[in-house]
Amino acid sequence: MSDRRRLHLGAFMRPVTIHTGGWRYPGAWPEANFSFPRLKYLIQRLEAGKFDAFFMADHLALLNMPVEALRRSHTVTSFDPLTLLPALAAVTERIGLIATASTTYNDPYHVARKFASLDHISNGRAGWNVVTTANPDAALNFGHDAHMAHGERYKRAREFYDVVTGLWDSFADDAFIRDVESGIFWDPAKMHVLDHVGEELRVRGPLNVARPVQGWPVIVQAGASDAGRQLAAETAEMVFAAGGPIADAQAFYADVKGRAARAGRDPEGIKILPGALVVVGDTVEEARAKRAHLDSLVHYDSAIGSLSIALGVDARSFHPDGPLPEIPDTESSKSGRERAIALAQREGLTVRQLAQRLGGYGGAAIVGTPATIADTMEEWLETRACDGFNVMFPHVPVGLDEFVDRVVPELQRRGLFRAEYEGTTLRDHLGLARPENRFFAPEARAAE
Amino acid sequence: MSDRRRLHLGAFMRPVTIHTGGWRYPGAWPEANFSFPRLKYLIQRLEAGKFDAFFMADHLALLNMPVEALRRSHTVTSFDPLTLLPALAAVTERIGLIATASTTYNDPYHVARKFASLDHISNGRAGWNVVTTANPDAALNFGHDAHMAHGERYKRAREFYDVVTGLWDSFADDAFIRDVESGIFWDPAKMHVLDHVGEELRVRGPLNVARPVQGWPVIVQAGASDAGRQLAAETAEMVFAAGGPIADAQAFYADVKGRAARAGRDPEGIKILPGALVVVGDTVEEARAKRAHLDSLVHYDSAIGSLSIALGVDARSFHPDGPLPEIPDTESSKSGRERAIALAQREGLTVRQLAQRLGGYGGAAIVGTPATIADTMEEWLETRACDGFNVMFPHVPVGLDEFVDRVVPELQRRGLFRAEYEGTTLRDHLGLARPENRFFAPEARAAE
Repeated sequence: MSDRRRLHLGAFMRPVTIHTGGWRYPGAWPEANFSFPRLKYLIQRLEAGKFDAFFMADHLALLNMPVEALRRSHTVTSFDPLTLLPALAAVTERIGLIATASTTYNDPYHVARKFASLDHISNGRAGWNVVTTANPDAALNFGHDAHMAHGERYKRAREFYDVVTGLWDSFADDAFIRDVESGIFWDPAKMHVLDHVGEELRVRGPLNVARPVQGWPVIVQAGASDAGRQLAAETAEMVFAAGGPIADAQAFYADVKGRAARAGRDPEGIKILPGALVVVGDTVEEARAKRAHLDSLVHYDSAIGSLSIALGVDARSFHPDGPLPEIPDTESSKSGRERAIALAQREGLTVRQLAQRLGGYGGAAIVGTPATIADTMEEWLETRACDGFNVMFPHVPVGLDEFVDRVVPELQRRGLFRAEYEGTTLRDHLGLARPENRFFAPEARAAE
Repeated sequence: MSDRRRLHLGAFMRPVTIHTGGWRYPGAWPEANFSFPRLKYLIQRLEAGKFDAFFMADHLALLNMPVEALRRSHTVTSFDPLTLLPALAAVTERIGLIATASTTYNDPYHVARKFASLDHISNGRAGWNVVTTANPDAALNFGHDAHMAHGERYKRAREFYDVVTGLWDSFADDAFIRDVESGIFWDPAKMHVLDHVGEELRVRGPLNVARPVQGWPVIVQAGASDAGRQLAAETAEMVFAAGGPIADAQAFYADVKGRAARAGRDPEGIKILPGALVVVGDTVEEARAKRAHLDSLVHYDSAIGSLSIALGVDARSFHPDGPLPEIPDTESSKSGRERAIALAQREGLTVRQLAQRLGGYGGAAIVGTPATIADTMEEWLETRACDGFNVMFPHVPVGLDEFVDRVVPELQRRGLFRAEYEGTTLRDHLGLARPENRFFAPEARAAE
């Protein structure tokens, strides 16, 4: 058992549940998205369940769906992740804190500084989910007429990553001396001025924050397109994968780890965690009935809006009970469109059926008893379909409590999941090395 | 006594002390700037002392001073305010939380969203110190070759304020219904799309966060130039004033309140709080000796750098023991330059003397016993030189503890300061009205 692989578990919150019917489920907290006391309860329960991380999504606009759908959704409004996570850091001690931040509509100096600050405040628990923003409504909130093309977004994302990680390396780990006697606060020989001049960005530096506790906060990515996979293989340490059939997951796992190896990286340095909505019942039948109840709470107005987002076109004009028509290429997220089309084809879904599935949550789901859920997770882990899961809860608090109280103990009993945190940082939890500072060799530190 | 005016007290942290020698004082915590446990102690002590607010400064670069001075200063590196304050919100219940955020190198959508999030998370305790950024090094961190001219910065600041406050009003206070039965989460009739198109900014909106608890976080400003005073008179609810001789403070107070009245505002809706470094002793002589000890800890290399910042020119070439030479106009902050020149002229200071004063803390100071400090504060309050003070502590924790343990009780005994918080929000503490939503009339709410 000693060398048996262990699951990593992220909790993908948004900031509470991704399922648009979740706020209406009996016993759910409809106001949890904007209630710090509720969110504090949730993260403290996740920490009691020894989760690797609380993972928060983000949007820089109300989503581009018709207002008749929008008004039915609790997911389109939420706190800014980099404002919520520091508050959650203050009420927890071990669980990792992953915030989504866009490379499309941000300045790298701000992003580097905020994550460095969060990493210090949380004593090494920060992670950055590096995303590009495809929502055309976000462009209009940031003074742009049109959103950037897919290729340009990824080019900027790669350069943005180089700048942010370079800024984190502005100071050697031992630059801050704070020698009261001599009055020297930090050593200028251990400061590096980045002076980045690239095609997309010009940033001088240095950052005005000491190097993060983890060296760098953990780099997370979720791109599924070819450009997204390549960026992940070159830079990511955790990949939020799409899930889907196990054979697809195994192929994705092998592809990304292979790309990482070809890029000169240790494939063990990238953890692949598909997202999965997990619904727990006393029997498989009860779990399925719970999910059916949950999906029935999604209004068609909301469902068709979600389908429109996934496809990048307005789907309201489609015949609800006909097959999905041909969808043209747009500049919105390719992976979302391709997944939706494949799902409709694979299961022979009508527009209405597809919309209702996507309107609740269209991604991978694990629906069953604690034992069957653990069986599935074990199979995925052992057949190299994943290194763990980003778990989504159907509703809160009950859906989350059921996972922590019933599934986690089953995983622990099987030796698949930690019984206690073994380290203090998110890197410790994920088994990731602390990056060396690219500008200050480790020999310089060892020679002191 | 019942209608006697009360002092308002902000704690101007940076995030710990503004005095560059403070970290070397016996008993001080040199690492407090980057230690969340230390910062948590400090804000909890301030809350025990019933302070109106914890007020955090900001810089978007290492300051533009020579590295030989920089390395002696603990003030040039700090957490991002909008990352630290949410964490401090989670460990406090009543004290206000004011973060500085620049209008020069930020997007208004981000700023509106982060302060709205902080206001919700803290249950109505957020304040925004609206500043323009004059530091030329900051421009280079944000892709600009040169920093903006003074006039353009203020023009952008005014438009930025209009956009941010407009985004906070995106939703009526009662827009979020969360009706589980009907499945309506919020009412589109109570959402306003800003669609701002101005000379400096284009922002569509709406914000993706419910209206802040306070309606708007409290608006704070610190500009002392003519443009700064006018912006404050039109928009600010708290002004961080420069202090200085009491006659100057009275003139500033009358000027800003008069400008506010001419702009159609209630002058009571702007609270004027000069900054003051407060040093407490058992006797006046002991307090003066403490301050002298503190100033002696400032190295000349650091002092001359501070003088360079204040003047906007490199002062290292000036003769240390000669008078201050003629200083040309630059695009850096006018108020800082004018204050430094006036101080040198008023007290007949050499370059060295001026540098050492500014290198520690060159602004107003109140140095004495709890009784003489209270006398000064009472005189300033009663002669309309201020509505309170933004107190700066010479070092932490001891300098802060001395104020909370010795000066606060004396102010309370005199009826000049609250013994308990009477409300829950920063607006409550400051006696400021909650702004109406400009897009949704109060009648509409009253008619429900």
